[in-house]
Amino acid sequence: MAIGIMSSLLAKSGTILASDHSSVVSMNLFVALLCACIVIGHLLEESRWMNESITALAIGLCTGIVILLTTGGKSSHLLVFSEDLFFIYLLPPIIFNAGFQVKKKQFFRNFMTIMLFGAVGTLISFGIISLGAIQFFKKMNIGTLQIGDYLAIGAIFSATDSVCTLQVLNQDETPLLYSLVFGEGVVNDATSVVLFNAIQSFDLSHINSTIALQFVGNFLYLFILSTLLGVLAGLLSAYIIKKLYFGRHSTDREVALMMLMAYLSYMLAELFYLSAILTVFFCGIVMSHYTWHNVTESSRVTTKHAFATLSFVAEIFIFLYVGMDALDIEKWRVVIRDSPGKSVGVSAILLGLILVGRAAFVFPLSFISNLTKKASYEKIGFKQQVTIWWAGLMRGAVSMALAYNQFTSLGHTQLRGNAMMITSTITVVLFSTVVFGLMTKPLVRILLPSPKQLMRMISSEPSTPKSFIVPLLGNGHETEGDQSNRNVTRPTSLRMLLSTPSHTVHYYWRKFDDAFMRPVFGGRGFVPFVPGSPTEQNGHQWQ
Amino acid sequence: MAIGIMSSLLAKSGTILASDHSSVVSMNLFVALLCACIVIGHLLEESRWMNESITALAIGLCTGIVILLTTGGKSSHLLVFSEDLFFIYLLPPIIFNAGFQVKKKQFFRNFMTIMLFGAVGTLISFGIISLGAIQFFKKMNIGTLQIGDYLAIGAIFSATDSVCTLQVLNQDETPLLYSLVFGEGVVNDATSVVLFNAIQSFDLSHINSTIALQFVGNFLYLFILSTLLGVLAGLLSAYIIKKLYFGRHSTDREVALMMLMAYLSYMLAELFYLSAILTVFFCGIVMSHYTWHNVTESSRVTTKHAFATLSFVAEIFIFLYVGMDALDIEKWRVVIRDSPGKSVGVSAILLGLILVGRAAFVFPLSFISNLTKKASYEKIGFKQQVTIWWAGLMRGAVSMALAYNQFTSLGHTQLRGNAMMITSTITVVLFSTVVFGLMTKPLVRILLPSPKQLMRMISSEPSTPKSFIVPLLGNGHETEGDQSNRNVTRPTSLRMLLSTPSHTVHYYWRKFDDAFMRPVFGGRGFVPFVPGSPTEQNGHQWQ
Repeated sequence: MAIGIMSSLLAKSGTILASDHSSVVSMNLFVALLCACIVIGHLLEESRWMNESITALAIGLCTGIVILLTTGGKSSHLLVFSEDLFFIYLLPPIIFNAGFQVKKKQFFRNFMTIMLFGAVGTLISFGIISLGAIQFFKKMNIGTLQIGDYLAIGAIFSATDSVCTLQVLNQDETPLLYSLVFGEGVVNDATSVVLFNAIQSFDLSHINSTIALQFVGNFLYLFILSTLLGVLAGLLSAYIIKKLYFGRHSTDREVALMMLMAYLSYMLAELFYLSAILTVFFCGIVMSHYTWHNVTESSRVTTKHAFATLSFVAEIFIFLYVGMDALDIEKWRVVIRDSPGKSVGVSAILLGLILVGRAAFVFPLSFISNLTKKASYEKIGFKQQVTIWWAGLMRGAVSMALAYNQFTSLGHTQLRGNAMMITSTITVVLFSTVVFGLMTKPLVRILLPSPKQLMRMISSEPSTPKSFIVPLLGNGHETEGDQSNRNVTRPTSLRMLLSTPSHTVHYYWRKFDDAFMRPVFGGRGFVPFVPGSPTEQNGHQWQ
Repeated sequence: MAIGIMSSLLAKSGTILASDHSSVVSMNLFVALLCACIVIGHLLEESRWMNESITALAIGLCTGIVILLTTGGKSSHLLVFSEDLFFIYLLPPIIFNAGFQVKKKQFFRNFMTIMLFGAVGTLISFGIISLGAIQFFKKMNIGTLQIGDYLAIGAIFSATDSVCTLQVLNQDETPLLYSLVFGEGVVNDATSVVLFNAIQSFDLSHINSTIALQFVGNFLYLFILSTLLGVLAGLLSAYIIKKLYFGRHSTDREVALMMLMAYLSYMLAELFYLSAILTVFFCGIVMSHYTWHNVTESSRVTTKHAFATLSFVAEIFIFLYVGMDALDIEKWRVVIRDSPGKSVGVSAILLGLILVGRAAFVFPLSFISNLTKKASYEKIGFKQQVTIWWAGLMRGAVSMALAYNQFTSLGHTQLRGNAMMITSTITVVLFSTVVFGLMTKPLVRILLPSPKQLMRMISSEPSTPKSFIVPLLGNGHETEGDQSNRNVTRPTSLRMLLSTPSHTVHYYWRKFDDAFMRPVFGGRGFVPFVPGSPTEQNGHQWQ
């Protein structure tokens, strides 16, 4: 799509067969590279270190170098990094799929902890990085940066990218940890984007308590309204599909309607200046809880895998893109000409601030969270805390998009301070994704060895579906995608339901859901069950 | 996507939450309209007259009128019709899905007849419309049109749109007719686009036999090379997926790879100036014959429905788009100011030429085709000939795209002759789609009543899958998607195999396929068969 935008920018009045030959060339190259990433990522699946993101970044970098050499050092990228492309096409499928595939029970059971990490934690991290940046960068004389720029730096480097870690963690083995890292990632994305927009729109020349209060109020308003919009869009889709019974005539209509309604919720949030990320995330949750159960069997399989595939391709696309864009010669020229050492210094300081800023909230907030929990299996152990800390060290496409928004005007980065910040962002993103990313798989295996080893031994038989093994291992969680498991109140669930207040809330929600919501909006148990359904055979599909 | 391109055109440096508010508004409106089209199309499913295309056109027209009124007559459309959008994003999924879902046996059995209609027939139609246009329009004094313009008019109005008819015909009831109409539609698209490009690139000031020969040679070259490229891309995808056995790790990778490889084949054809429509069509055929059988069960269901859904949405999108674009005030102003009556005359002449041009090849070529067939069930009856003639009377998005390419420069249509041709194209497309389209359902029921009525009675029970009924009715064709039907050489097939030479070719191809192709590239029977597979339950999905 990216190249399509490019091509339509470059050539609005070309011929039909090749609107602009050079843009067709880059489009071919890009699609071919995406295919290569998938194949190579598959081949490296068993590797101890690599994962899909690093593969895509590496391929992007290599291609960038090749293009740089063939064009004689003039250009390294096929496309200009565009926030529109990122925020309008690539992010929605990723976030929607996250909501669609999340294990809702785990997510809502840990909702308070997730919010603590995602919202409060991000604010702490933002504060530390902003203050640190003011302290260090003012002394270094790296160009003209305003107070708004420093706060923007805080927001930019608070946006984590936990995809790397989520690829390594397993939703079935470590459900608590997975839901925490995963949930924090989504809330963190939303928080940092909202924060960033607030910084750009508020008058920051004199911060006082009124503005701070306004800021908090604005954040809560955005959070609640965005969530409501997503929930409403999801419920509407469930109601329409249940009432009109689309499956009678066509599977395609159901699938198309689900996709379009999800996208509509995202765009509506954009329209009302809400947090589209939160909206589409909750839309995904509601759709998987109600709508998904109202459609035909084939639509279920199709939506499940089609959404996962779109998300997967969008993720590879982003990393490939970031890898290729990293070598943009124009930005580096300004920085390297002036002060080659200073750039390294700035990047190192930012990496240090990220490490400190994250440690400063993960361990204290884990301690607070543990105080509120009674059962030991609900507490976050030290090794798990280290994993959570590590999972949020990577910086990715959101940071890049925000940095481009703040520090470039019309694609050019001629101002020294701005060029420095862009190249530093690229350095931090590349370094954290590649170096920290490479260490993630071994680290997680050292920190959380036992269930992983067990699973690896069992799941080495590829024909055995995971969802059948996990209940046998007895770690007492309900796999949401598991259709065959129809008894909702199993002993373990019942014990959990009564153990803490948050479970009681969940219990009443369940009663309300069964009594009022499901008869209206459909959902599991309110649509005929087909034995031997294909969904039984497929475990979770989060990649 | 359209609006995305618009939005990035309009606002390259906007803020994140709303890059350009007006483009976000139009995007919302457009997605909401797409949803409305799906819901209303579903509600009108049982209607005697309507179908999805007409619904979308009508909704588009109504929206256009509303926008025209609210903006005070300034603008009627949300987006500018862009050929790039059409040829790069909307057409590929439609054509690929056509190849993917086609019943290959029927298609190849009638290959010669399809080529006769699609290639020779289109050329005859092109000749008649061009000559007629020269005869009539030269007398009418409608502005400065060159010889190239007249030939372009011939190519533009030779591009049929058989979607309307295909929605009414049933692949299981009338396999011969369906494969003829369907196959002709695809070959016709390819022929008219190739023809159009040839007209734009050749020097047409003096036509002689050398140029005519060159033209034929060029056409054959494009046809053969495009087909080969599509077949190669399909085989490559089958080989990669079979060798690497992607399903072991992830369904998403398989689906993503199939989508990307199909798209790559389209873009590669664009790159080499081939006919991308033909390439992606044959890529779809090969993928459904080999690749589709190599992937996991869930990937099969997903690809089948995801491709159909994409094609479905792209079709609605196009009709909605054409409907909205039809009221573009700028073009009409030029025409209406000068000569309101003349515009109606031109459109009427064009419609007449279309009717005559199509009749001039359908009936003679059917006669020729019938001469070569021995068995009576293979001959094309008169009622079927009328249906084929009728099916190709509609003009659609390809005509629009070609007309915009020929008669607009930079989106403006100030020249009188050009404005006249654009408005006439819009009139012809609207009139043929709405009026002819509305008459299609009743006409087909009158012409081909018996099996339709029978099917309608049986399939009124929604839970009974079609693919189980059809073999019982004994019309002796093999449903390609039907996994349960494993005996390839059934009595009826065997009789057919031996009856005519073309079936002998098919028989040898089958032997070659079993001996050499399938062991290398996979395919049905060369991958483990899972009983109770979900594909059993779903008939064809062509919409």
